[in-house]
Amino acid sequence: MFVLDLILKKRNGMKLSREEIEYFVRGYTDGDIEDYQAAAFLMAVYFQGMDADETLYLTEAMLHSGDIVDLSEIPGIKTDKHSTGGVGDKTTLIVAPVVASCGVPVAKMSGRGLGHTGGTIDKLESIPGFQTSLTREQLIRNVKEIGLAVAGQTGNLAPADKKIYALRDVTGTVENISLIAASIMSKKLASGSDAIVLDVKVGSGAFMKSMDDAGKLAKMMVDISRGAGKKAVAVLTRMDNPLGMNIGNALEVAEAVDILKGHGPEDLREVCIELAANMLMLGGKGTLDSCRELAARSIADGSAFRKLIEMVERQGGDPSVLEDTRRLPAAPVKAEYKAEKAGYIIQMNAEKFGMASVALGAGRKTIADKIDPSAGIVLLKKYGDIVEKGEPIAVLHTSEKETMPDALKILEGSVITGEKSPPEVPIILGRIE
Amino acid sequence: MFVLDLILKKRNGMKLSREEIEYFVRGYTDGDIEDYQAAAFLMAVYFQGMDADETLYLTEAMLHSGDIVDLSEIPGIKTDKHSTGGVGDKTTLIVAPVVASCGVPVAKMSGRGLGHTGGTIDKLESIPGFQTSLTREQLIRNVKEIGLAVAGQTGNLAPADKKIYALRDVTGTVENISLIAASIMSKKLASGSDAIVLDVKVGSGAFMKSMDDAGKLAKMMVDISRGAGKKAVAVLTRMDNPLGMNIGNALEVAEAVDILKGHGPEDLREVCIELAANMLMLGGKGTLDSCRELAARSIADGSAFRKLIEMVERQGGDPSVLEDTRRLPAAPVKAEYKAEKAGYIIQMNAEKFGMASVALGAGRKTIADKIDPSAGIVLLKKYGDIVEKGEPIAVLHTSEKETMPDALKILEGSVITGEKSPPEVPIILGRIE
Repeated sequence: MFVLDLILKKRNGMKLSREEIEYFVRGYTDGDIEDYQAAAFLMAVYFQGMDADETLYLTEAMLHSGDIVDLSEIPGIKTDKHSTGGVGDKTTLIVAPVVASCGVPVAKMSGRGLGHTGGTIDKLESIPGFQTSLTREQLIRNVKEIGLAVAGQTGNLAPADKKIYALRDVTGTVENISLIAASIMSKKLASGSDAIVLDVKVGSGAFMKSMDDAGKLAKMMVDISRGAGKKAVAVLTRMDNPLGMNIGNALEVAEAVDILKGHGPEDLREVCIELAANMLMLGGKGTLDSCRELAARSIADGSAFRKLIEMVERQGGDPSVLEDTRRLPAAPVKAEYKAEKAGYIIQMNAEKFGMASVALGAGRKTIADKIDPSAGIVLLKKYGDIVEKGEPIAVLHTSEKETMPDALKILEGSVITGEKSPPEVPIILGRIE
Repeated sequence: MFVLDLILKKRNGMKLSREEIEYFVRGYTDGDIEDYQAAAFLMAVYFQGMDADETLYLTEAMLHSGDIVDLSEIPGIKTDKHSTGGVGDKTTLIVAPVVASCGVPVAKMSGRGLGHTGGTIDKLESIPGFQTSLTREQLIRNVKEIGLAVAGQTGNLAPADKKIYALRDVTGTVENISLIAASIMSKKLASGSDAIVLDVKVGSGAFMKSMDDAGKLAKMMVDISRGAGKKAVAVLTRMDNPLGMNIGNALEVAEAVDILKGHGPEDLREVCIELAANMLMLGGKGTLDSCRELAARSIADGSAFRKLIEMVERQGGDPSVLEDTRRLPAAPVKAEYKAEKAGYIIQMNAEKFGMASVALGAGRKTIADKIDPSAGIVLLKKYGDIVEKGEPIAVLHTSEKETMPDALKILEGSVITGEKSPPEVPIILGRIE
């Protein structure tokens, strides 16, 4: 087999076989295929696409390039969730304890933030003492004993995806639905859970800007999961505005606690209940409607919050900061972002809020950047609210006051106001199984 | 400027500016742009194409990456020709002396053969003593004094094209009309002539298989030439069957001499008269019709043949082998390729004849291969002829008898016969100016 033949075959719109895709993935990961030939191949895939079979072959070839976490020692249907990335998306901090408290085991491996979207691991690390590095044995023991663990990736999962993604990033071949789906699913399938709920974000603050693209991606990921023998559901959720009111690591932990204590913003609560309900349903806890009730009850009766406390204790964190979130790392420097014009808020650019939050120290521009756990943004107003010119829309938090002007500059024009109250829009946009 | 932005812009179907294309060509030639980004860019160009402006920018950027031969010391309109490559294409050996003998100077830089098509330099080197390496000064002096020189490339012409072509060759990005046109024209424009006649071959033995593609390539090359301020005409000629009867270096020199002596096959003569007439017209010698007469007369009165002798003498070759072509290098080993079936010849696969000729030693599979000047194939039958089963169709010539079985094997099935006499087909298919 020659890689040039594979390039030409895909370039000419033909379907590749499982053997051909395995040859490409293995050859590129082992260094037998040159970067320039892989780049040409990926650009040909960008234009010609891959069908469901090819996408499954690609996913499985990348999945089998590294370790596959074996969670079989843990009884029950282990469920996982994945979000395609949004601003203010702290759903894992809420959904994982909700699901675990209802008796479905959650052994979740999460990532760190890069660019304008945050990562669950960074958020958890704003809890003093919390350990995100668990061995496979620790992860399994914790889930067996308390039903829940959230940790950084253990082992060498899907190294082929890592190498291919790095090349896509510098060759303009990121934005292809098959390549995106295979990249996400190779890592998810390597994480060892039995069932997966995919939170596919749609809108100006998300990677997928249109419902059409998001729906295709969601369907492709669900199909891959089924092809690989695992249950999956995708929930399409709106990501035009930031989710909830808080952006930034400790700020998001505090808001997650609010929700688990029965308070907090309705949009965030609704997304969390929906994701948790789908995980519970896949975990065998009944119909989707009954699982929605189950999830809501676990919040109402405090069992989900107790499960979070239990996990934090088990992973070395100080649970007192959750009992009183004012004890979480707090920023010494604050400033207000004020309304540039009066009117109803008809759009809040989630991406700009995410980037401003990164500028304040809450995220990373490059992998080497250090995180300020206290940095971030607290929204005072949301979509549909009415504001006066000069009225505060958000409070910016940071430990480094030099970052404030940059962050405020990024936010310029991020909130658009209109004369009429905008229509109410649903936060849950669709569901694909 | 960042190369990733250029990749994305072209990938998304947008037009690149002159500055952007210059940045790419300079960056890649200098090694500042990585092979993998160049490969992704070229694949994006393969799919999105380039318009006439972009193709001109690319040509000019590659043209200016190296030396540009200055022929301004030579009075008159220097004319050049270029063929996109065919089997048995010895037209330069005929056309250059015809044009020069009519008073239009020809300072021609030619290439060597690679793959199934031959190169003029290899053909001329089958004349004992003939020097194809001329300095720029020798080239200019010869053209000033006798109106004609044919030499290998002098100087470092279009090094950017060389590097980009090498990458295209291994990344499946050769077959794009803009990239092909820019590659050819950057080298042609660097060769310093004032006017260019392009012989665009069409058919199963040519790079362009369809009239549609060939016409687009021809128009693009003529437009580039005009954009760069030089006159150009493209002639589209048929390349389904080998051109003339002889394939191979010394064999093609002998056939060229036949034409210049007023004999030889009609298809070859017709292509040569047409190409020469177009060069003469661009050289200011009158209308195309009168130039056709001029070209024919230079053959009929022997002046074109005398011009070839003059050039061979001037470049150190032994002219006696042209007076008597039996004195050219002759192959010791011969074998016949015989008709597999009886009938009218309705197709001769030019590519297979070219590859068989390479196998016999007449060409190169790789750049390092040595040429056997005596090797090649002499056709005894052509398109439209009637053959009996077992009747010889061609005689194969070689110095290495071990090559014979391979060459005969390649020819298997290369000639297709039918029950009816096939229609006459023109050899000149079109003209674009």
